[in-house]
Amino acid sequence: MADTKIHRASTTAPVNIAVIKYWGKRDPKLNLPTNSSLSVTLSQADLRTHTTASCSASFPAGDSLLLNGQPQDVSGARTQACFRELRSLRAKLEKQDSRLPALSKYPLRIVSENNFPTAAGLASSAAGFAALVRAIADLYQLRESPMDLSLIARQGSGSACRSLFGGYVMWDVGLEASGADSKAVQVAPAEHWPEMQALILVVSSAKKGVSSTTGMQTTVATSSLFPARVASVQQRMEEMIAAVKERDFESFGRLTMRDSNSFHATCLDTEPPIFYLNDVSRAAIRVVEGINAKAGKIVAAYTFDAGPNAVIYFEEKNASAVAGVFKSRLSHLEGWAGKGEGVTASATEGIDERALTALHDGVSRVILTRVGGGPASTQESLVDESGEPIVKT
Amino acid sequence: MADTKIHRASTTAPVNIAVIKYWGKRDPKLNLPTNSSLSVTLSQADLRTHTTASCSASFPAGDSLLLNGQPQDVSGARTQACFRELRSLRAKLEKQDSRLPALSKYPLRIVSENNFPTAAGLASSAAGFAALVRAIADLYQLRESPMDLSLIARQGSGSACRSLFGGYVMWDVGLEASGADSKAVQVAPAEHWPEMQALILVVSSAKKGVSSTTGMQTTVATSSLFPARVASVQQRMEEMIAAVKERDFESFGRLTMRDSNSFHATCLDTEPPIFYLNDVSRAAIRVVEGINAKAGKIVAAYTFDAGPNAVIYFEEKNASAVAGVFKSRLSHLEGWAGKGEGVTASATEGIDERALTALHDGVSRVILTRVGGGPASTQESLVDESGEPIVKT
Repeated sequence: MADTKIHRASTTAPVNIAVIKYWGKRDPKLNLPTNSSLSVTLSQADLRTHTTASCSASFPAGDSLLLNGQPQDVSGARTQACFRELRSLRAKLEKQDSRLPALSKYPLRIVSENNFPTAAGLASSAAGFAALVRAIADLYQLRESPMDLSLIARQGSGSACRSLFGGYVMWDVGLEASGADSKAVQVAPAEHWPEMQALILVVSSAKKGVSSTTGMQTTVATSSLFPARVASVQQRMEEMIAAVKERDFESFGRLTMRDSNSFHATCLDTEPPIFYLNDVSRAAIRVVEGINAKAGKIVAAYTFDAGPNAVIYFEEKNASAVAGVFKSRLSHLEGWAGKGEGVTASATEGIDERALTALHDGVSRVILTRVGGGPASTQESLVDESGEPIVKT
Repeated sequence: MADTKIHRASTTAPVNIAVIKYWGKRDPKLNLPTNSSLSVTLSQADLRTHTTASCSASFPAGDSLLLNGQPQDVSGARTQACFRELRSLRAKLEKQDSRLPALSKYPLRIVSENNFPTAAGLASSAAGFAALVRAIADLYQLRESPMDLSLIARQGSGSACRSLFGGYVMWDVGLEASGADSKAVQVAPAEHWPEMQALILVVSSAKKGVSSTTGMQTTVATSSLFPARVASVQQRMEEMIAAVKERDFESFGRLTMRDSNSFHATCLDTEPPIFYLNDVSRAAIRVVEGINAKAGKIVAAYTFDAGPNAVIYFEEKNASAVAGVFKSRLSHLEGWAGKGEGVTASATEGIDERALTALHDGVSRVILTRVGGGPASTQESLVDESGEPIVKT
């Protein structure tokens, strides 16, 4: 008699925002990067993907994925690579122990929810693929370490490999052509430097720019400055790892800003040029420069991914001097509640007035968050006992 | 008895807009660049400096310069270097021929007028120093060639050396530490490729950005991508010279856009980052991309100096397809008159609507011009027979 049981496992996974950026693949099929990168994992209280992986012999044939209630295409090579590799690890277990149910042969039904608006342009694919891989690994009761699983998540979305850990995470470029050593490694857990906070300024933008997947390979193919970026990142990585280990915010901040600018410079040097920063992003940079000038040292560091949103890192003790300045002009926006209640609006003397006005006019939402932990199992399932998706409304 | 005669010479000199940019000095004192550059000299009918150099034993002691009716400081090292070198050449002539009046010992009175608003952020120092050097050289009846004089103008303002010639002009980086071989050379006269036109979009900007003199040396000191730009420019120069010689607009345009983007990329990679392009500049880029996509080839090429203004090069035969698209949204602005009367507004199907709207909202003035000749003597003097400045109002 066939096994009709519904097998389920649920996890949450975090978003990460790189301070040394991933931009450029040396192998697009395996998602192997041209350089190492390093990110801060953000708190799941504010930003997370919640995923339930389920499988059953009773499910109709074919794997499926529901994200925020919308069916997603799972036929793409990246999703297929994750499914295939995880099934293969499960099949190995089943071969070793014939009493195990043959889950590797059952259709997968994956259900995911983000606790943040996908339209906000926050890199959701990292949390998404990390949660998918972690949930299926739990469903399959795999014994692989997060580092091993990062090799699989990487094939779904490069930066997803870093979301398998909390805290401060490096994605090692690796040397092997197979990609076997291009994996995520935790540099330090969140508890090592828990004072790290992040203010995300979500910038209104009517139109999505160039996708990062397309953009980065155009940069690799056409930018004459790109090889110089790749050559300089390794040294910067070493300095960044040291800054994290020593909790040296000034070095962390200087390197973070330098790397963001270097990345966007190579985008501008792409043919045709790619612009992710707009006048509102530039205003955020000017305000951070003003905050640092006022402090007489680096207490705030901006970084921008493939879009206009600013992520501003700072230490908790400087929350008022950093987040407070932004709050002075953005207090009408939601997002200050919760962790932000402790932040009071600060005086803006010495800060560029035009830049503050540009932020007031161009920022649609703020998210005040901090460094956080890695994926966590949860009993809250998005698939009910009969195997049906539970879609929150 | 002392010579009380008023000696006068008048010239006009053109603006030039580089298509391979000068950015970075290897010797700030001598204005020696890190790389060769190449520019198009623009027609003096639209943009020129008119300068009269005068001197007389009857003038009160001390050199003076009046620009658009405003006294200018001439004590700066750059202006002093030009005065000193030109006086030294005159003194040599006087030594050879004792019948010559001792002009080299007389105070200089220089009077200049620009036929364009200095506030528009158009590189006026190139035309200004070229006119100053040419006018004094004429006053002193020097026999030095424009190439020789370019060595002097270079010390006033780097890009001024290129304004001593019309047409297509290269500034050779040179090898010598003395700067003796870092001079301007005409690649081709305007008549070689007279079809070249330029549309300048003057972008409203309430605040002046970082000066190019300060900015370029910060880039040299801090950008890790800058050496890669310098390394790639030499090859680009050779391709650009070939494109000019062959009147190959597609290559000319592709190289022009590539070099502008490379230059602004190194600005963004500077610490702190320098932004000259704003959202209006980016809109101009998008419209040029749309025009080229519609044409199926490169018929328009944008370039940006150290500010948000766009300069768009195109050939006369494509005036309607290029300038006409801009005119469709900017016909309310002055600047289309004269040469622009032949340009009719064109259909904007296929061109990014948001970009066109951004241009409509952010461009304050257009200048439609073309390639033109070098400095020219004029009988129109800005100093009257009694030695007094004639200030136009």
